[in-house]
Amino acid sequence: MSEPRIPDASRRSERSRRAIFDAALGLVSEVGYAKTTVEGIASRAGVGKQTIYRWWPSKAAVLLDAYLDLAARAAEEAGAAPGQAGLPDSGDLAADLRVVLRATVDELNDPRYDAPTRALAAEGCTDPELGARFTAALLTPQLELFARRIEAAQAAGQADPDADARLATELLVGPLHHRWMHRTGPLTHAYADALVDLALRGLTPRP
Amino acid sequence: MSEPRIPDASRRSERSRRAIFDAALGLVSEVGYAKTTVEGIASRAGVGKQTIYRWWPSKAAVLLDAYLDLAARAAEEAGAAPGQAGLPDSGDLAADLRVVLRATVDELNDPRYDAPTRALAAEGCTDPELGARFTAALLTPQLELFARRIEAAQAAGQADPDADARLATELLVGPLHHRWMHRTGPLTHAYADALVDLALRGLTPRP
Repeated sequence: MSEPRIPDASRRSERSRRAIFDAALGLVSEVGYAKTTVEGIASRAGVGKQTIYRWWPSKAAVLLDAYLDLAARAAEEAGAAPGQAGLPDSGDLAADLRVVLRATVDELNDPRYDAPTRALAAEGCTDPELGARFTAALLTPQLELFARRIEAAQAAGQADPDADARLATELLVGPLHHRWMHRTGPLTHAYADALVDLALRGLTPRP
Repeated sequence: MSEPRIPDASRRSERSRRAIFDAALGLVSEVGYAKTTVEGIASRAGVGKQTIYRWWPSKAAVLLDAYLDLAARAAEEAGAAPGQAGLPDSGDLAADLRVVLRATVDELNDPRYDAPTRALAAEGCTDPELGARFTAALLTPQLELFARRIEAAQAAGQADPDADARLATELLVGPLHHRWMHRTGPLTHAYADALVDLALRGLTPRP
């Protein structure tokens, strides 16, 4: 079979889109959200400002799409099938959670993602509107994937049916995020494993 | 007994110190860390810039002290004795943790603390040096108080002796911080209680 024929205009569009995303993430990492401008992104990407405004209404919209694209590529590199609908389900909740939290650790330790993630987390922390957009587009869907995997484990008798799946999700994601955010300790695979273990068994001694 | 006699100079110093802290926290809440300057703080506090530099070497140092003072006053309002050395220990770990996490919820919901806490968390997220100073001065001592209370519970047979007390601390503090930071759900006393409950019993069904 021959390659699908992509018209030149589409190729150019895709190249521009990629250049705009790279410029947006590079700038926000280097100078922060506040000092990143549509003009600056256009100039670094080698496109006109109007090209950006034709596709996105605002700086926040460009950065949101750039970050979603980055997250999708990171997920693909980590072995997730494109468009994958859920967390792995091997039937072993602990094993699956370890795989997912180890991948999160790798992502947070990757310098390509660290700077833009920090810049956008910082901006979302003080700007409720931007924070809400990122949370709705990126974080809430991720939390939902965890909650669905935990619900599947509840249905399979592997997790306490009385536990709130969303709260259980926060028990796994919250400590990792706290350690990353405040740099209170090393983010390693061993940490991810220990976190899964403690969240599953809890702090109360078992008889 | 008569009131202790405080020399006028000390009173003036204390008034200036308080005015500088209020100005620093007000400014960082309104315009963010980056745009807060020692000049701006001095001008709003009604003192000379040299007064600030006599006591603090930098903007970061003023803000760190202002924030530590704010946290100390918040702890006092929440009923902690001044200079209290640890978390409450009534002999009931769950009850004590609920008291502490409910007080944390109240603090995070208080608009007086919300804005400066967000401004400084955001700055610490992207500025590793400032973040490390705040973590060392404020966060690490708090995490240590939790860890010591959990170790006491382990010694009393109320908590699994194999659990890492510092990791268990993150299991309690991390989800609360994550929900606050990303505004993914309401921060209520009921949430604090449910979090303590799930962290203690874990997600695995008990036989």
